[in-house]
Amino acid sequence: MSVTLAQAQTIVRAALEHGTEQGFNPLTVAVLDTGGAVVALGRQDGSGYLRPDLATAKAWGILGMGITNRALAARAADSPEIYTSLVALAGGKLVSVPGGVFIRDADGTLLGAVGISGDASLNDEAAAVAGIAAAGLVAETGAED
Amino acid sequence: MSVTLAQAQTIVRAALEHGTEQGFNPLTVAVLDTGGAVVALGRQDGSGYLRPDLATAKAWGILGMGITNRALAARAADSPEIYTSLVALAGGKLVSVPGGVFIRDADGTLLGAVGISGDASLNDEAAAVAGIAAAGLVAETGAED
Amino acid sequence: MSVTLAQAQTIVRAALEHGTEQGFNPLTVAVLDTGGAVVALGRQDGSGYLRPDLATAKAWGILGMGITNRALAARAADSPEIYTSLVALAGGKLVSVPGGVFIRDADGTLLGAVGISGDASLNDEAAAVAGIAAAGLVAETGAED
Amino acid sequence: MSVTLAQAQTIVRAALEHGTEQGFNPLTVAVLDTGGAVVALGRQDGSGYLRPDLATAKAWGILGMGITNRALAARAADSPEIYTSLVALAGGKLVSVPGGVFIRDADGTLLGAVGISGDASLNDEAAAVAGIAAAGLVAETGAED
Repeated sequence: MSVTLAQAQTIVRAALEHGTEQGFNPLTVAVLDTGGAVVALGRQDGSGYLRPDLATAKAWGILGMGITNRALAARAADSPEIYTSLVALAGGKLVSVPGGVFIRDADGTLLGAVGISGDASLNDEAAAVAGIAAAGLVAETGAED
Repeated sequence: MSVTLAQAQTIVRAALEHGTEQGFNPLTVAVLDTGGAVVALGRQDGSGYLRPDLATAKAWGILGMGITNRALAARAADSPEIYTSLVALAGGKLVSVPGGVFIRDADGTLLGAVGISGDASLNDEAAAVAGIAAAGLVAETGAED
Repeated sequence: MSVTLAQAQTIVRAALEHGTEQGFNPLTVAVLDTGGAVVALGRQDGSGYLRPDLATAKAWGILGMGITNRALAARAADSPEIYTSLVALAGGKLVSVPGGVFIRDADGTLLGAVGISGDASLNDEAAAVAGIAAAGLVAETGAED
Repeated sequence: MSVTLAQAQTIVRAALEHGTEQGFNPLTVAVLDTGGAVVALGRQDGSGYLRPDLATAKAWGILGMGITNRALAARAADSPEIYTSLVALAGGKLVSVPGGVFIRDADGTLLGAVGISGDASLNDEAAAVAGIAAAGLVAETGAED
């Protein structure tokens, strides 16, 4: 079971609205299913042409490893060597900074992930969380409460 | 000047609605700006995970060469060798079958391209044309009138 | 919802047993989930080292496009150019000969695909069908009844 | 002479059982022959889609260099530059953290290697050692006794 197109479009729209309301830089939002394929993507006017790849990478890497960006960052801090190998294995599609957020349903079932790029990492992440909430789903960022 | 996010989202939504109304297989729609970067993408539930790449390729190749899918097909028929080189140079992101459509404004200015994959090529193309019309823009397929 | 490890291991074991019983060449069997990631793989002694990639490709390509090997073959016959682009987009992980078979449950829900390489294509396919049946699941090859 | 499919399947099964008994995260186990090709692979439900590549990389890198993960780590500490080249040459399929373990017979003859990913590196390694022992073979991790 993965995020539907309708849910993904809601996430994209609400995440971009959050960015606009907060005065963020132009954002790119990608919503991926559990297998790592894009379901919906939106790039705001003025968001650079590498942003779709970067937004996708933020979501792809956490889905591929099954751990959050923050856990990836901890792994990179513990062992820079394995992080180098991971990035190479992933063809660059793995990022340790915030902005990739797991999407779960109310029961905790994994439905996919959102990746956002364009502003500061924590702002990207906040937009993703807002988008997921707007779709009535549950965000997992790996941040301490 | 390129297609805006708002226009691109309208194209994605209307193209997918056209496919649903016509009973097409699940479609994937990608809208690219004049630089070949994705502005918006939507993949209907049940559309395979290679479809985003294929939809993107249909638009990317015509933008990169500045000629329609049909002109690419004529080129391939005239000279299979150059077509082989083109596909390799493009990393596969160039397709000669219908389903990649230029987006122009009323004055004929190029704004980007739409690529669609999922059903028969002419159906994919018809959905792209419907999407572009819904955004109040002009489609160029290369088909004879 | 995708094939479980237990189901995938049953498919691998039963497919290889079928090959041995029928006197096929050594086979390699790969079972992929709906997102195209390997769940289980087994390579019989004497099966060459490219066989894991080829077996995986047979399953990956049909899942990525959502159509059977035979439908891919028909597409290639209709338009060799698009087939060339598809193989390039897939990084070679797309094959039009038999030996990649969809796995469905009794309700028709897609659970993944099996790819087999090592003997004649129709024998590879027969082993995949035998493996899927042994797991109590439903095989879809695209062959006419 | 390399690990047989029967031995490799025993290693996969016993390694995964070890992980389950110990309460590890879901694991992916890959068993490679002396030429670096996969003989058997199993991915537990919930183990991410990048794990097959990472498990394979842990075994592939030590076989390719003929030294253990720990010797690779020492090499990386001594000379980060050569390690960077190694990872690039290997396309990422070389990892210096524990979890790749050589398989030898009672006489010390090299038969292949096991790679495991999913939990802490030392837990991955312990599961590999358990799997190799269950097949009546000898594990070499490079750890001090």
